[in-house]
Amino acid sequence: MNFAQVARLMAGFAGLLTLAQVPPLVFALQETAPAPLSPVAGFTASMLIGATVATLLWLAGRTDRGEIYRKEAIAVAGLSWFLASLLGAIPFQWSGLLHSPIDAVFETASGLTTCGATVLGSGDNMAIGDVPRSLLLWRALTQWIGGIGIVLVFVALLPAMGVTGKNLLSSESVGVGTDKFQPRAIEKARLIATIYLGLTAACIVLLVTLGGFDWFDATCHAFTALATGGYSTRASVAEFDSLGGELVLVLFMFLAGASFAVVATNWRTGWRCPLILVRSGEFRMYCLVSLLVVTALTFTLLRSGLPIGTALRQALFNGISVLTSTGYATADFHAWPALATLILFCSMFVGGCTGSTAGGIKQVRLLVTLKLIAYSIRHFVRPKSVERLKLDDEVLPAAVISSILTIVLLWLVCVVLGALVIALDDRMNFVSALATSASMQGSCGPALTLVEPSTAIDVVQNGGTAATLAATPNIGPFGGYGELRPWTKLVLVLQMVLGRLELFTVLALFAPSLWRR
Amino acid sequence: MNFAQVARLMAGFAGLLTLAQVPPLVFALQETAPAPLSPVAGFTASMLIGATVATLLWLAGRTDRGEIYRKEAIAVAGLSWFLASLLGAIPFQWSGLLHSPIDAVFETASGLTTCGATVLGSGDNMAIGDVPRSLLLWRALTQWIGGIGIVLVFVALLPAMGVTGKNLLSSESVGVGTDKFQPRAIEKARLIATIYLGLTAACIVLLVTLGGFDWFDATCHAFTALATGGYSTRASVAEFDSLGGELVLVLFMFLAGASFAVVATNWRTGWRCPLILVRSGEFRMYCLVSLLVVTALTFTLLRSGLPIGTALRQALFNGISVLTSTGYATADFHAWPALATLILFCSMFVGGCTGSTAGGIKQVRLLVTLKLIAYSIRHFVRPKSVERLKLDDEVLPAAVISSILTIVLLWLVCVVLGALVIALDDRMNFVSALATSASMQGSCGPALTLVEPSTAIDVVQNGGTAATLAATPNIGPFGGYGELRPWTKLVLVLQMVLGRLELFTVLALFAPSLWRR
Repeated sequence: MNFAQVARLMAGFAGLLTLAQVPPLVFALQETAPAPLSPVAGFTASMLIGATVATLLWLAGRTDRGEIYRKEAIAVAGLSWFLASLLGAIPFQWSGLLHSPIDAVFETASGLTTCGATVLGSGDNMAIGDVPRSLLLWRALTQWIGGIGIVLVFVALLPAMGVTGKNLLSSESVGVGTDKFQPRAIEKARLIATIYLGLTAACIVLLVTLGGFDWFDATCHAFTALATGGYSTRASVAEFDSLGGELVLVLFMFLAGASFAVVATNWRTGWRCPLILVRSGEFRMYCLVSLLVVTALTFTLLRSGLPIGTALRQALFNGISVLTSTGYATADFHAWPALATLILFCSMFVGGCTGSTAGGIKQVRLLVTLKLIAYSIRHFVRPKSVERLKLDDEVLPAAVISSILTIVLLWLVCVVLGALVIALDDRMNFVSALATSASMQGSCGPALTLVEPSTAIDVVQNGGTAATLAATPNIGPFGGYGELRPWTKLVLVLQMVLGRLELFTVLALFAPSLWRR
Repeated sequence: MNFAQVARLMAGFAGLLTLAQVPPLVFALQETAPAPLSPVAGFTASMLIGATVATLLWLAGRTDRGEIYRKEAIAVAGLSWFLASLLGAIPFQWSGLLHSPIDAVFETASGLTTCGATVLGSGDNMAIGDVPRSLLLWRALTQWIGGIGIVLVFVALLPAMGVTGKNLLSSESVGVGTDKFQPRAIEKARLIATIYLGLTAACIVLLVTLGGFDWFDATCHAFTALATGGYSTRASVAEFDSLGGELVLVLFMFLAGASFAVVATNWRTGWRCPLILVRSGEFRMYCLVSLLVVTALTFTLLRSGLPIGTALRQALFNGISVLTSTGYATADFHAWPALATLILFCSMFVGGCTGSTAGGIKQVRLLVTLKLIAYSIRHFVRPKSVERLKLDDEVLPAAVISSILTIVLLWLVCVVLGALVIALDDRMNFVSALATSASMQGSCGPALTLVEPSTAIDVVQNGGTAATLAATPNIGPFGGYGELRPWTKLVLVLQMVLGRLELFTVLALFAPSLWRR
């Protein structure tokens, strides 16, 4: 391990994160924050500390002039989310918004991993609606940075370092392997950043014109929709009461969950680029799953007595929000009927496409798993038949299949282990422990807990808020994680980063052999 | 497909099932059943119908003189559980015990698959304690027959027909592949039957001498413990209030969950046979998982205020009962703390060893999955390292690993799909739908639902019975499946058979190509 090099690269990240605090500082200087809060002090202190850390890291790494190798790339990718979560937490704590440093780290990690779980509005923390705009902008910015960050790590950094192929199924090794004009990593990164910026701008404009959002709310929501993060500037998107806004957000959540990598790779084909995207197996799977989720949710909501319009609107927004791992909510969906909560729970595992900002196991892995299961049943009936599994007209090598199945199973193992640890807090019940674990790892945000059927029906039909089970913290879409114990929050932070970096990159940090020279 | 041959073999099964009703008929002739019930009529009618069906099948298949081939073996294995569930249900219905034919089929399928879920004591069905002895014996017998049946199918029938290896990980293809003295299928079947009989006899004697059970209760419990079935002659094993009896049952449940196949294969090595069993990777995994489950359950029960003796006794009995997919209960464990119910839920997936009567995914598949995950992380850190996965000193071929991962993932997919269908009944909540699905497929029996934390603490500390959530049927260990809708029960029957035959054999029945000539 070339520690100097790791330090040098981390210095760059720390510096970027510090620079990103300039816009919220400008906002802070213009606004009058409520009495005990001081966002200006928060951002100033944070930028000073950030600049110091960046300088120290740069000094530690200044001797390094070498090429980046595989191990260093893994270490940088794995460590940078943790470092950024610490540095980015300073404004929340120093400004006086969050009293507990662990809460501040949780909020920042949840932002940078585009998870979207919040401690605001729960525990003894301020409600989201009362938070000063500068801090709301910083929350949204952490997600926007985290969103583009993860795409660049998986599409440009890790593949260029050879951290792909058999073990880490990135879009590089499957699904995009067909192209002949693959641009170099830097060019690709630039293209992805441009697309990301362009979509964000389009989203802002549409939210203002069609949704009736003001520019500030539109910008924050565009940042968190494109990142599939889910931080809102209100307790719920429903407060805007804007059908146009919801439809715009659905569109951009869906686009953010599709593969930036495929688009960037095929950019040079011009008008054929969207065609290539639409024809890819993963995108088709993504469309099919989205359609199934929304249809099934609409069906269950209709059964519980909602009119068709309301049922469809709620199913579409909340279904796509959970499936793309965004986590916005216009309904307190953990009070929905059991069938609907089961569907949402499964959606938390799946997520969007590879090479997107969405979390979860990813659609292509689900597709390959289902293809393999279908093949195995056919092969069981006719063992002499010879057949090769294909994806987008390319044969999938056995090693790739095996690594996909391994990552899916490891994902499930980690969710179960996470749930067991979360359940050590005896206020958490079966559902809340399992759903919180799945939601954190899948970068979704809100989780589920069990609600009395009688309350649930009332909530669904009258649009109220669910009273959760006695003594169980409300970690649902209208609740927050503030009430959880500090050590539980730290476990959740670990799970967020674990899920965001698709397990291996983080688990590798615990392997002693990574750190040997 | 040679239909004549399938008919001929099914005739044999129908005949055996009819003969097995002689002992309960003898009991029925000696007892005085409560007024509306007539077990004598039930068994007489059942044996007449059974004999007729067997004869008709024999006539349909009398032209066949051929060898048994692969497809026919799959069809027979898949269909026989369904046919036996229909024929074996007649005594329950005709005697007047269960009014609904679907309830009768559910109870019989649950017996023959060694699941152990019951409709008695719930809905408008009689409590188990009031059921005449002849019918209790028939319940226990269905499990005992189902238990030996599944071992013979997986250890003797399917491997001899070549239905193993890549697709169906039986003990034949992994774990026992090392032996050089493999006896022929018939000899092996005879040996397994002898061991099964011997263990049953030993269990009866120990339950009478150490447990203070009477001969009838001892016999019924020996039948259902060796089958890891879990039908009791009372509402709960706790009613016997016998520590000795519980320890004997724990021992035999554990033995029944260990591999009969390994013992039968290595029988000729004499005193080295137990040594070979203990040294096998799967058995070690089984011991380790059992130890972990019991320790973790004891820990959570201690935390909720139970004295150490009671905590250990309840954790040992109920933990081993669920892990081996038996389903006996001495505590209303679905009211246990969330951590404990999560552990029990996971145990329902794992089950015992291959070549045993236990259900679930099986320990060897869990072991291989974990080995592969560990290998993948090592390989991610050092991609140039070359290493082969081994089990019991033999290299695991890639095709076997892939098929193991496929069956594990298919298992999870089927549990999720089952839960979604079960949740169509809107009285079922998130936990009850998911746990019922996992329990049926894993041949466990009792499921879980969510209990108010305040009630739960009372139940755990004072040994009471949990009041379940308003309007949710109690499908916990002291409840029953009687209240569920008829179509839900049919889905559960399908899931029981699906899980019992390890998915592929049943799914193959739906493949048109199986039925072509």
